Amino acid sequence: MEIHEKFMQVAIELASENIKNGGGPFGAVIVCNGEVVGRGANRVTSNNDPTAHAEIMAIRDASSMLNRFDLSDCTLYTSCEPCPMCLGAIYWARIKNIYYGNTRADAAEIGFDDDYIYSEISLPLNRRSVAMTPMLRSKAIKTFYSWAMMLNKESY
Amino acid sequence: MEIHEKFMQVAIELASENIKNGGGPFGAVIVCNGEVVGRGANRVTSNNDPTAHAEIMAIRDASSMLNRFDLSDCTLYTSCEPCPMCLGAIYWARIKNIYYGNTRADAAEIGFDDDYIYSEISLPLNRRSVAMTPMLRSKAIKTFYSWAMMLNKESY
Repeated sequence: MEIHEKFMQVAIELASENIKNGGGPFGAVIVCNGEVVGRGANRVTSNNDPTAHAEIMAIRDASSMLNRFDLSDCTLYTSCEPCPMCLGAIYWARIKNIYYGNTRADAAEIGFDDDYIYSEISLPLNRRSVAMTPMLRSKAIKTFYSWAMMLNKESY
Repeated sequence: MEIHEKFMQVAIELASENIKNGGGPFGAVIVCNGEVVGRGANRVTSNNDPTAHAEIMAIRDASSMLNRFDLSDCTLYTSCEPCPMCLGAIYWARIKNIYYGNTRADAAEIGFDDDYIYSEISLPLNRRSVAMTPMLRSKAIKTFYSWAMMLNKESY
């Protein structure tokens, strides 16, 4: 467990440093074969990018470093339980192991919407606060058929 | 409704073009005051970035173009119902209106994991296929306290 605590400590330090640099209190690292291959901190307000959460930044950093989108042999250490956006990214990156520090309830207590977004995402489409309107499926589905019939495509 | 169909058509065309350019069959546009301010297409395999879904790319493009992370006055048109990662990003960007073409069930039929990830995210932490282990909360929470006590921080 000591090695995991060492990497978690790095994630927490990234969060702490990030506050001093004008960012939010969140940090994350991705480890592959015992080495840090990706680092991230929350840069939403400083980069004007609502997707710039620590975990997203770390995943993009690791994918760039390793030159692959499949991080199934990697472990993520994050200073806070991932929000739904970041958890979705973790599944797409196929990461199987996450260590986290603070909880979504802790995040809610200091004003972040993680817990609210979790509850919204679990609702049926017509009960969410975001209006979701279906449109032109008959045209959109043709792109799916084209994709499905392609040979030599890179699936994921 | 005609104006909405016009923008959805642009999103579908981005998806269709993207297939020809080696990407996945997904496209999205963001509209503000009747103008397209962000465009995106799925570049996961071509960019080696598991977060490079059409909606994420469009949100990052619009935020960069408008120089702000709050897109609450914008509308998103996407060729497919957003996955949990992208829906999370939509909430963080505060977008209130989404129009979508294909459904998550359509995406599942051509081999994409959206529906599976929705079911995983709604589960309690200990029942997910990704292992989530709490660690060093007592240290991590100090970064939250530091943030909470800061004056003049930019909250979101």
